[in-house]
Amino acid sequence: MNILVVGSVAFDSVKTPFGEAKEVLGGSATYFSVASSYFTPVNLVAVVGDDFTEEHLSVFKERDVDISGLQHSPGQTFRWRGEYGFDLNEAHTLDTCLNVFESFNPQLPAQYKQCKYVFLGNIDPDLQRLVLDQVENPKLVACDTMNFWIENKLESLKKTLERVNLLIINEAETRELAGEANLVKAARKILGWGPDSIIIKRGEYGALMLSDSTVFSAPAYPLESVYDPTGAGDSFAGGVMGYLASTDDLSEANIRRAIIHGSLMASYNVEAFSLERLRNLSSTDIETRFQDFKTLTNFELSPTCFNACK
Amino acid sequence: MNILVVGSVAFDSVKTPFGEAKEVLGGSATYFSVASSYFTPVNLVAVVGDDFTEEHLSVFKERDVDISGLQHSPGQTFRWRGEYGFDLNEAHTLDTCLNVFESFNPQLPAQYKQCKYVFLGNIDPDLQRLVLDQVENPKLVACDTMNFWIENKLESLKKTLERVNLLIINEAETRELAGEANLVKAARKILGWGPDSIIIKRGEYGALMLSDSTVFSAPAYPLESVYDPTGAGDSFAGGVMGYLASTDDLSEANIRRAIIHGSLMASYNVEAFSLERLRNLSSTDIETRFQDFKTLTNFELSPTCFNACK
Repeated sequence: MNILVVGSVAFDSVKTPFGEAKEVLGGSATYFSVASSYFTPVNLVAVVGDDFTEEHLSVFKERDVDISGLQHSPGQTFRWRGEYGFDLNEAHTLDTCLNVFESFNPQLPAQYKQCKYVFLGNIDPDLQRLVLDQVENPKLVACDTMNFWIENKLESLKKTLERVNLLIINEAETRELAGEANLVKAARKILGWGPDSIIIKRGEYGALMLSDSTVFSAPAYPLESVYDPTGAGDSFAGGVMGYLASTDDLSEANIRRAIIHGSLMASYNVEAFSLERLRNLSSTDIETRFQDFKTLTNFELSPTCFNACK
Repeated sequence: MNILVVGSVAFDSVKTPFGEAKEVLGGSATYFSVASSYFTPVNLVAVVGDDFTEEHLSVFKERDVDISGLQHSPGQTFRWRGEYGFDLNEAHTLDTCLNVFESFNPQLPAQYKQCKYVFLGNIDPDLQRLVLDQVENPKLVACDTMNFWIENKLESLKKTLERVNLLIINEAETRELAGEANLVKAARKILGWGPDSIIIKRGEYGALMLSDSTVFSAPAYPLESVYDPTGAGDSFAGGVMGYLASTDDLSEANIRRAIIHGSLMASYNVEAFSLERLRNLSSTDIETRFQDFKTLTNFELSPTCFNACK
C-alpha cells in the first residue's frame, strides 16, 4: 500500500558534541519518506525554494519517492539551526526560518488521493486537515505535532486528532498536550480525544504504545556511536508507517513489529549526520537489526520459585 | 541459596507531588531485603540507633529476614530527607544525618559467612571489601555505589569492583564512574575493571544489562499511580538478586528473568510510600506482573516485507 506524507523539507545546520553539519538536507517529510521507502512506495507533499538543487532531489529519486507533490516556490527553503549537548535527547533550537514553508498550501496530485496510509507530519493542524480533506478513503491516518501547536492551536489540533487513528509524539509533548505529568494517564486522556493508539517517542529510551486494550514497550537500540539525533523521530515514524503499509495488517501483533521497525530505522539514522546513513541501508541491515532487537528484549517465561517451593 | 546484604537502614522523610511521609522506615538494605525475601532467605547486616523500635523490627520479622547481623548502637538511626518534583526520576536530597551509620563497622555473624549470594549496598567501598573479607566462598557478588564514592573514593571503589561480579548502578553514576557520556561505551569501560556484568538502572525507563557477550533491555512497568520512587533501585536489586539466589542459576537466560523480577519489585515499591506496598505482596502479585512484563515487551518475528517482495 502507498503512503502519503506531508511535512517539511528543510536545510538543517546541526552541531553535536561529535561534529557539525551545515545546511544539510533535513525536515520531517524527508526523514519520514526515506525511512518508509525501504518498505513501500511513498508519495511526498512538501514545499522547497529555488535554492533546492538536483543534488537534493536525488536523495528522494534514488529511494523512488514520488515527488510530484513537492512544490517549488520562489524564495528560500525552510531552514533550521540547532545544537545538542551530551544529552542527545534534547535539541536546542538556535534559529528557525520558515521561508517558503510560511505560505505552504499543501495540494495533492490526483494520483495521491487514493493513498490508504497517511502520515501528517508536524505542521499547522489546519493544514493537516486540509490534506485529509483531499484524501478519499484512508485506512490509517497517523500524525505528529509539537509544543508550538499545542500552545498556540490546541483547538485546531484537537479537531485534527478526532480524525486520526494513530498519534506519534514525544514524551514531553504527550504530557503537555494532556496537561498531565503521569505518562500513562496523559496517554489515556489523549486517546479519549480520538486516536485509537498513541506511540510515545522517548529518544534513547525507546517508545511506548498505548491503546484501549494494550501497552507495548519497545527499547531503543543501545549504540556506541550516536552522531546526530536530528530526524530520529521522523525516521521512527517512517519505519512504523512503512512497515504497516507494506504489510497492510493493523493487528496488534503487527503494530508491535512495526514499532520495532521504527526503532531500528531511528537507530540507523542517528549513526550519521543528515541522511548519510539512512539513505544507504540494505535489506540485510534492516533484517539483521530487527533480529538484534529480538535478542535485546527477549526473555523466557519459566516458573517463578519462591521461598515456599524451596 | 541465602543472600547476604549489607547497607543502610534509615528513617526517611519524603515529599513528592502526591503526598508526604515523615520518618518512615527506609534505607538501601531495608528495601533490598524485603524485596529479595519473597524469593529466598535473607541475612541482613546494618546498624540502627536506640530509636529503632519493635514496630520497625517487625517489618523484617514478618518477612523472615535474619536480623542477627543488625547492630544496635547508642544514638540515632541514619536519617534522610528529600523530595521529588514531577520528574520522579530525580531525588533532591535536603538533609542527610549519618548518625550511628557514621561509625558503622559491619561484622558478620558466623552463620552469615557461607552465604553464596552477596549484595554490597551503597556504603563506603572500604566497608564493602571489609564485608567481602568475611565471606568464605561467595558465588555471586553484586554491588551498588553512588556519586559520593565515585567523587571521593574512586581508587577504593575500583578495588571493590575487582572483586565484584555484578555492578548495579544508575545511569548518571555509570557515566560519571566511567567519565564517558555514551552509556554503552561507559559500561564497556567499567566491565574492563572487573565486573562480568553491569545492570544500569534507568528509573521509569527500565534497565539495561551489558556483559561481554550480550545486551538486554528491560522496561519499567508503566504505572498510572506512582507515589514515591524512594527505594525503587534497591527493590530492583533485591528482586534481581532474590530471583538469582532462589534459582541458583547464573545462565544469561536466567539473569534476564531476574532483571524482569527486579523491575517488577520496583514497580510495586513505587506504588506507595515507604514499604507499605512492598511488604504486602502475594506470590500471585509477583507471578501476574511477571506475565504482564512479557505482554508489555513481546513481539513476534515474522518475515520483513520490502518493496521487492510486493
